[in-house]
Amino acid sequence: MPDFVRRIPEGENRERLVCAACGYIAYDNPKVVVGSVVVADGAVLLCRRAIEPRRGYWTLPAGYLELDETLEEGAAREAMEEARADIALDGILAVFSIARIGQVQVIFRARFADPALPRFSAGPESLEVGLYAWDAIPWNDIAFPSVRWALTAWRRSGTGPLGAPTGNPPEDRRGVRRMGAIPEAGL
Amino acid sequence: MPDFVRRIPEGENRERLVCAACGYIAYDNPKVVVGSVVVADGAVLLCRRAIEPRRGYWTLPAGYLELDETLEEGAAREAMEEARADIALDGILAVFSIARIGQVQVIFRARFADPALPRFSAGPESLEVGLYAWDAIPWNDIAFPSVRWALTAWRRSGTGPLGAPTGNPPEDRRGVRRMGAIPEAGL
Repeated sequence: MPDFVRRIPEGENRERLVCAACGYIAYDNPKVVVGSVVVADGAVLLCRRAIEPRRGYWTLPAGYLELDETLEEGAAREAMEEARADIALDGILAVFSIARIGQVQVIFRARFADPALPRFSAGPESLEVGLYAWDAIPWNDIAFPSVRWALTAWRRSGTGPLGAPTGNPPEDRRGVRRMGAIPEAGL
Repeated sequence: MPDFVRRIPEGENRERLVCAACGYIAYDNPKVVVGSVVVADGAVLLCRRAIEPRRGYWTLPAGYLELDETLEEGAAREAMEEARADIALDGILAVFSIARIGQVQVIFRARFADPALPRFSAGPESLEVGLYAWDAIPWNDIAFPSVRWALTAWRRSGTGPLGAPTGNPPEDRRGVRRMGAIPEAGL
């Protein structure tokens, strides 16, 4: 590993990780997570995680956006990788800031590319994948707070055209809370 | 500098920059740019860049989101740093993918925190800052395509509540074109 120390580079006003040996500055910026609430007949596609963190818990098909990729391309790739699902995007459902872990999450609302034949199966990062109606969602085993937020945003969005994207909920405007053991009220 | 080579790390399916000496993997992810169309009396706040790239050209107050910062905090910080403007956000106006340079841009519509007294001045990264009505915008001297896109989205959004955010225009869905010398039609 490079021998990183925290210091303020010349001409800046903020500490960065700088290699003490060679002066290389490792700019550590927030990462973009892109994902989808994929809906078929009022049910939503959920993936049970095969990897840490939160192995065994349920999430949306989502992951880090890659370089040379648009948000739309990233959302489609993640649905294919994690749920072997070919999807079509409706638009942006929610945009969340998760300051605690340096993430910006862009969540689309989506359908299966062939709505008459919603095909999916577990990719290598999923233990199982399924379609869940609202009342059947495993609320006690959701992986991350933002999965709850996105599902709630989907419920509120109905089935018509999307409006302004949902942001962080009032109780966690900065995205700094961890997942509680007890389900949130109102879900 | 670390001795980086491009190779596919074990268990991955994509080339990364890996230090040949120590095996450190430099994950290079897209960066988040956050900015605002700040409006006062139908005019928009523009900054003439004091730094490269595109020194001397006009842009919105915008910049890289930092770790431990929400999108809203980042947009407010950039307006303060580049235009010494204290702003209040309306909501997300546009979300752009700029695949050519690995950026996701989240652009807010905003007002001055005190609308009766729109105060601003050039910060260290700006040569000058001004409020421009639509017809007075220096269209031939705009810094980046996405500045045009955001200004067009603002024009279309009117003054009422914001709806679904504007995305990339049809002619550049992936965000790969460079700024042309000739202004785009329809502006």
